[in-house]
Amino acid sequence: MNLLRYFLPVLLLLISHLSFANSPPEPLPSWNDTATKQQIIKFVQHSTDSQSDTFIPVADRIATFDNDGTLWAEKPVYFQLYFALAQIKEKAAQHPEWKTQEPFASVLKGDLEGVKKSGMEGLLKIVMASHTGMSSEQFDASVNAWLKTARHPDSQRPFTEMVYQPMLELLHYLQQNDFKTYIVSGGGVDFMRAWAPEVYGIPKEQILGSSVKTEYKVIDGKPTIMRLSEINVNNDKAQKPLTIQTYIGKKPVFAAGNSDGDLEMLQWTKTSPYSSMALLIHHTDDKREWAYDKDSAIGHLEKALPLAQKDNWNVVDMKQDWKQVFAD
Amino acid sequence: MNLLRYFLPVLLLLISHLSFANSPPEPLPSWNDTATKQQIIKFVQHSTDSQSDTFIPVADRIATFDNDGTLWAEKPVYFQLYFALAQIKEKAAQHPEWKTQEPFASVLKGDLEGVKKSGMEGLLKIVMASHTGMSSEQFDASVNAWLKTARHPDSQRPFTEMVYQPMLELLHYLQQNDFKTYIVSGGGVDFMRAWAPEVYGIPKEQILGSSVKTEYKVIDGKPTIMRLSEINVNNDKAQKPLTIQTYIGKKPVFAAGNSDGDLEMLQWTKTSPYSSMALLIHHTDDKREWAYDKDSAIGHLEKALPLAQKDNWNVVDMKQDWKQVFAD
Repeated sequence: MNLLRYFLPVLLLLISHLSFANSPPEPLPSWNDTATKQQIIKFVQHSTDSQSDTFIPVADRIATFDNDGTLWAEKPVYFQLYFALAQIKEKAAQHPEWKTQEPFASVLKGDLEGVKKSGMEGLLKIVMASHTGMSSEQFDASVNAWLKTARHPDSQRPFTEMVYQPMLELLHYLQQNDFKTYIVSGGGVDFMRAWAPEVYGIPKEQILGSSVKTEYKVIDGKPTIMRLSEINVNNDKAQKPLTIQTYIGKKPVFAAGNSDGDLEMLQWTKTSPYSSMALLIHHTDDKREWAYDKDSAIGHLEKALPLAQKDNWNVVDMKQDWKQVFAD
Repeated sequence: MNLLRYFLPVLLLLISHLSFANSPPEPLPSWNDTATKQQIIKFVQHSTDSQSDTFIPVADRIATFDNDGTLWAEKPVYFQLYFALAQIKEKAAQHPEWKTQEPFASVLKGDLEGVKKSGMEGLLKIVMASHTGMSSEQFDASVNAWLKTARHPDSQRPFTEMVYQPMLELLHYLQQNDFKTYIVSGGGVDFMRAWAPEVYGIPKEQILGSSVKTEYKVIDGKPTIMRLSEINVNNDKAQKPLTIQTYIGKKPVFAAGNSDGDLEMLQWTKTSPYSSMALLIHHTDDKREWAYDKDSAIGHLEKALPLAQKDNWNVVDMKQDWKQVFAD
């Protein structure tokens, strides 16, 4: 076998040439060739070039993404709310009292204005009634069952097809370059974990979000984790960097968000000792998606825009920067 | 280049033969060839054999390890307490009031009996005074500075050399077989993250533990995470499976612990739909380490031993199963 050892370097060289012949396709095909795309590619090339001053070791290539309005759409309202409303309707038979109790009565009548009138308190009741009181496994199954038939009210597409194609390409481009991609969302962590691994190629343990308190109980001899009707973490604003520190213990070198709820995460990322990138998605396309910022309650974007300029973030102008918004 | 494509299968075959010639060394060399070692190897071989009924896909190969008493020693007291006491002494100059205030007065006099008398309340004061009121970075630096000179009171070794050699080998054996190894400890998560990545080969984001509350503050224009003097999570007993569910979102297929504080984690692991393994380390070796179980406050082991028998866990008898306890 010793002869082989002499040949091995030659063989490896040949194989590496062969793979040059099959060079990877151009990254980010759904992005227009604007400054934003060029800066993303430049950032990735510099971070992964061991000869560069701005090289980042693989262990520190942490990239964090907001979800609603950053990876998938969030209009007319956060998609998780449609799940919550559907669950209320499904459980109504076991709760005859809901017929006369707000906000449930409005939900059952399909009166969204009535739901809105119940305010944050009403919303919390809807979330708790639909998201808690069952085991982790039961909740996971209920999200998956809903996804199979639920459709977006405007596009009539499955919600998991309301994902932004350019952002999918960005996730995969970073993953291919050994960045560890995380979701750090205000959405419910267990809601996202039911579908996001398949849709984004991000494993459950890299999905962080808001959570409810849980309890470990042995029920009929079977250890079970029960979901309690109390908020554990509301993963928004300054909580995002705190969640990152608690879960990951490393500062991101790349972060993407789209609202003031992401301001602190992006700001925190820019304090990395490495050269880092903060990407702020600006919803500017009322034809292909929605156009909104400071006047929108959902995806409210006001303070982060001027800070982006001051702190050298990259702003994605959806209309200008994206060739395509959703996959065909 | 096309000719190369014809040769490629042959080349790959030759290279794979070459690597057969350098077959990996026998796993777990510091374990005696007892039933425990054989069962670990059998479990790993079956879990990673795609032809086996008990094959586990890579994404689900989650292995969780307690730290104190499982990966490193915990006698005479948890090593983190020595760090806390050293910090109190270091900070004493800025706290003249500690000279007369318990439990600090006893700490400064080196009177451990006096510290004990202050009970859980006193202990909490020592932990808070030594672990909070600074930024994440400052805390990390203080742990690293302490580790450089601190020595175990009996062995006079650095604390990071009080790690169990057989458990290091087990961690690496699982890692080599694509298990994602986590620490799930009652110890402070940020204390462990300062040294455990290097010592165990486990990245920070796979180290989970107890934590204090934190606050995001912009101080003199610099975003900072400050450590507050309030417990966030006490990661013990039933909290361990809850932490696993919150952080990982998957049930472990392998878990190791040594005390009743690990009971629920091991029990939870055995409910996996995959064939799973729960390993309970029993401290039986008063010559090479310490022998203790139900009569010890630290590493208290009473309820978990009979459950291990009933629920088909594997019990490690340190004296019988380990050829060597610490590295030379």
